[in-house]
Amino acid sequence: VTRRAEVIAIGSELLGPSRVDSNGSFLARRLGAQGIALAFRTIVGDDPADLRAAVSTALGRADVVIATGGLGPTVDDLTREAVSEALGLPLREDPALLRGLEERFARHGLSMPPRNRRQAMVPEGASVIPNRHGTAPGLLIRTAAGRLLALLPGVPVEMERMVEETLLGALGASEDRFATRIFKVSGLTESETDRRLQPAHAAAGGVEWTILAAPGQVEIHLRERVPPGARAAGIERLDAAIAEALGDHLFGRDAETLEGVVAAALGARGESVAAAESVTGGGVARLLTSIPGASRWFLGGAVAYTDGAKRALLGVDAAMLATHGAVSEPVARAMAEGIRTRLGATWGVATTGYAGPEGGGPDQPPGTVHVAVAGPRLVEHRTWRVPGPRLVVQERTVRSAIDLLRRALMQAAA
Amino acid sequence: VTRRAEVIAIGSELLGPSRVDSNGSFLARRLGAQGIALAFRTIVGDDPADLRAAVSTALGRADVVIATGGLGPTVDDLTREAVSEALGLPLREDPALLRGLEERFARHGLSMPPRNRRQAMVPEGASVIPNRHGTAPGLLIRTAAGRLLALLPGVPVEMERMVEETLLGALGASEDRFATRIFKVSGLTESETDRRLQPAHAAAGGVEWTILAAPGQVEIHLRERVPPGARAAGIERLDAAIAEALGDHLFGRDAETLEGVVAAALGARGESVAAAESVTGGGVARLLTSIPGASRWFLGGAVAYTDGAKRALLGVDAAMLATHGAVSEPVARAMAEGIRTRLGATWGVATTGYAGPEGGGPDQPPGTVHVAVAGPRLVEHRTWRVPGPRLVVQERTVRSAIDLLRRALMQAAA
Repeated sequence: VTRRAEVIAIGSELLGPSRVDSNGSFLARRLGAQGIALAFRTIVGDDPADLRAAVSTALGRADVVIATGGLGPTVDDLTREAVSEALGLPLREDPALLRGLEERFARHGLSMPPRNRRQAMVPEGASVIPNRHGTAPGLLIRTAAGRLLALLPGVPVEMERMVEETLLGALGASEDRFATRIFKVSGLTESETDRRLQPAHAAAGGVEWTILAAPGQVEIHLRERVPPGARAAGIERLDAAIAEALGDHLFGRDAETLEGVVAAALGARGESVAAAESVTGGGVARLLTSIPGASRWFLGGAVAYTDGAKRALLGVDAAMLATHGAVSEPVARAMAEGIRTRLGATWGVATTGYAGPEGGGPDQPPGTVHVAVAGPRLVEHRTWRVPGPRLVVQERTVRSAIDLLRRALMQAAA
Repeated sequence: VTRRAEVIAIGSELLGPSRVDSNGSFLARRLGAQGIALAFRTIVGDDPADLRAAVSTALGRADVVIATGGLGPTVDDLTREAVSEALGLPLREDPALLRGLEERFARHGLSMPPRNRRQAMVPEGASVIPNRHGTAPGLLIRTAAGRLLALLPGVPVEMERMVEETLLGALGASEDRFATRIFKVSGLTESETDRRLQPAHAAAGGVEWTILAAPGQVEIHLRERVPPGARAAGIERLDAAIAEALGDHLFGRDAETLEGVVAAALGARGESVAAAESVTGGGVARLLTSIPGASRWFLGGAVAYTDGAKRALLGVDAAMLATHGAVSEPVARAMAEGIRTRLGATWGVATTGYAGPEGGGPDQPPGTVHVAVAGPRLVEHRTWRVPGPRLVVQERTVRSAIDLLRRALMQAAA
């Protein structure tokens, strides 16, 4: 039988409108890889009665309960007390833990503030998970009913280390694990992707299949229960069918990104790229330069938001701008060639269009965009209309431009 | 007494590592404005027993329970059935609802698929909340114990409309409401902000006070319980003290953004700006062009990632680059002046630095950045070292550059 988990995020700030509980995502992934199904996530504030209720409810419906937060030294940090009361396990001061805390402060030339002494209190029978990155120790409790309750700090780096170094071991080898694989798709809508993958999906058998869409990118998430020592045979069988159905729309798997794939291709070939942007306003350059070491293959770019900037920075012909307008195929091509020549790059990539809410008249409504890629032997161009609000138009055009560059790199390699 | 709420987000995909429940943030804000405290948030998958347990638990500990999701037509959509069983309220087909669904499909020239008929099933005694944007109706149930249970669709736009148009009315006038105000700060760290605001914070009285930090920006969130018909007197009293303590570091309140404040100032004065970026890789241009109508005051920019690009796009002197290096005060100033002159803008803003993980040697570790703003009568410059990984260095430098522009605009206006 699959063990079931509940994750409790503790902290009144997490109930407000402006905070997201990012720890839950990490725990969902790590538990899944261990074959433990996440059944509930709960967020509760720093209220003693609510905290006790949340812990008791969770221990009543899950085999593994992981609570994050509320282990700090301040009066708001109530997790230790709430668990002690909910489980009837009195708190005792742990001398080794107290010594460790005092030594930690001493190493920084400080004496321990009195309030930190609370962090040495441990519910009877709990074992301590050391914290090498902060003062809040983790606590691990096996309840009388055989459930495992882990109390971890809310600071992500501290929590993640404790999970990797201690908690996963304490959870023990699971009967089965969940294997996962993510396929990343560009240049197709969610429904086009769905249609192409219908035969593969129909043959998915015991492999769970989820399709997720973000602006300019579609992902297929596969998940398969795998017995100990076995391979993820279902996923591996589907992989070939998915790759064949998607062709060059499949740009990566798992942690691969569009910009990372392009960066790797440019790096491997010793080539370079430069960007000339209008409608994307610097987004192409921004995404490419998010990659460490981008200066080895990204030479620079121009954000040419006006006709004057297109002339001054890219040498686009004034007559061409007057004849075709700034949002046109000839101008997109001239921008890509202009930046490539000016900066001496192997490749030039360009965007122009109307992000909205304003457009270029009845023939060119908001969302009309052109992208172009200029290379050693060709200039590629595409145009279409992106539905959606301004930021979606910009984000999708950024990804389309980088995707056109990716395809040009693949063709040049073929 | 304050009524307490629980929000339940329903959907197995929300338990996976890659999805965030955004509905909860909206509901937290709207409930708070109504004076209802959000005490718990729960996420549960599409499992009938888990769903029943989540609904029963919530009704046992909250006065108002809002569940989102699971009201669609597919077999995964189990909210109606789970609530019917948990509360012992049999499902009945609602003839008016069925007719409305059929008419909705007919208006699009379609006949209703048989599976959509499930969406006309209503637990006995529930009232229907019409959905003008989709097929899933909302349901409102007052339990025997006097609790209010709302079942709403998971699609944000549908859910939000139902809350605004129906649910808030059904919740009734609260005794008190929560008034909120957010103060936004640039150019100070969290602890510097904290120190400056110590006297104001000490005088906060019954006003709740939270400080939040994001890269390059600190926010102070105030929240105050206000009786019907009264003003938020505490917040208004604190506003003046906070504004005085922060001076020109306070750039906005509530929904105002740094880029929006700069856009409004440029627009009001009929002035323009252009950007010359190295370390931020297009991020300054990207943030400014995220604003609709940016083409009226943003002329364009150059992403000059290499010495060659700084010469070709900005006319930075080769000798200056050789003498001082690309990451230096003279080059930052020359970049700002170069882009201002080339594009004929009122203002030029520039960034240069090392984002990391690589740096410029022992004197210029990763995180060393320079920003400069050139205007009609002056060139401003700042340099400092930003701690943190690549993306944090880039994001903070983007905001610092736009903040320097904001201050230059304020000085020019004074």
